[in-house]
Amino acid sequence: MASIILYSYWRSSCSYRVRIALNLKGLDYEYRGVHLLRDGGEQRAQEYRALNPMAQVPYLVHDGFGLAQSMAILQYLDGLGGESRLFPSDPREQARVVQLCEIVNAGIQPLQNLRVLQELETAHGADGAGKADWSRLWMSRGFAALERELAPRAGCFAMGDAASAVDVFLVPQIYNANRFDMDMSAYPTLARINEACLGLAAFADAEPSRQPDAP
Amino acid sequence: MASIILYSYWRSSCSYRVRIALNLKGLDYEYRGVHLLRDGGEQRAQEYRALNPMAQVPYLVHDGFGLAQSMAILQYLDGLGGESRLFPSDPREQARVVQLCEIVNAGIQPLQNLRVLQELETAHGADGAGKADWSRLWMSRGFAALERELAPRAGCFAMGDAASAVDVFLVPQIYNANRFDMDMSAYPTLARINEACLGLAAFADAEPSRQPDAP
Repeated sequence: MASIILYSYWRSSCSYRVRIALNLKGLDYEYRGVHLLRDGGEQRAQEYRALNPMAQVPYLVHDGFGLAQSMAILQYLDGLGGESRLFPSDPREQARVVQLCEIVNAGIQPLQNLRVLQELETAHGADGAGKADWSRLWMSRGFAALERELAPRAGCFAMGDAASAVDVFLVPQIYNANRFDMDMSAYPTLARINEACLGLAAFADAEPSRQPDAP
Repeated sequence: MASIILYSYWRSSCSYRVRIALNLKGLDYEYRGVHLLRDGGEQRAQEYRALNPMAQVPYLVHDGFGLAQSMAILQYLDGLGGESRLFPSDPREQARVVQLCEIVNAGIQPLQNLRVLQELETAHGADGAGKADWSRLWMSRGFAALERELAPRAGCFAMGDAASAVDVFLVPQIYNANRFDMDMSAYPTLARINEACLGLAAFADAEPSRQPDAP
């Protein structure tokens, strides 16, 4: 039987994506918590860096094959077969899904993750309010684009009546938005999709507060 | 015959990626320049936003099908067949390539693009030196990870003796690094791969200064 190990931090939105994906695919996995703050960040420890030189979570090991970056992990997991597809097989629909995921993956999340906010404080003197404003700015731009794209064509979920990779990227980003008290009323489609997703066990079981390393 | 239109800005590193990919695939395309600075940014004009709500370049139109986000575009182009493959067909090798591309796509580029540096200046008072330090920080972290990953196993190019998507992401990022006078001596493998790539017409013809909208 195949073994899957996931190195994760409960509150990391990129780890959250992979947990949802594993659940949607119906794949069992072993959870290993990596605390991003304790002792200067366990991800910076030599032992973890030997595994993943980028010193980031998530990191997935499948039968000895290690992989970082949530987009790479999701596409790899989808290729394993199993239950519901994260990416459609039609080339144009697949490309659309990747495009929408990248709005979160490259357009929002990198700008408001922990290390960027730490640098904004250290090098540019941003206080809590400044860091929250910065985070909300990039989220609002990305969410506005996603709302425009999804409003005319979403079903229960982003791409229709089954969850896809777009939902897998969207829900953890809305979790981050809530941490920054973001007003989601301007994005009714996204808020509605988020609610629908959290009604599924695959999403609810992946929620940060329910992970073994949550405080 | 298929028609491909690329909306591009000569100095945008994400547009540069798509130009290289189109050349490597041997696909002809019509170039349409979108000036990111003139008149407050042509990408923000209503006409362009109707095409691409994210108001960013690159944007590719293939036989009426429009697509944003360079990762989505590269994977879509690879699916069209044609000359050299950007992504390997083996699932694990493919996942590795996506992972390495995402180090640039999500880990470096979003943190040092034009709109982020503009915001760093407007909201946090960063001057030219502060913006350059910020950009070099994220490039140095990503390049260090890529150097560690590629040094033991690169061929002439990142993944062996043929160019792949990793090279397509790497070369434009090194172009950006040069704009910020970054010292590349700590990344000898990346510097060597960059030289090898620029020796190929597919890369050289895509170089920013050779585009129709370059000043």
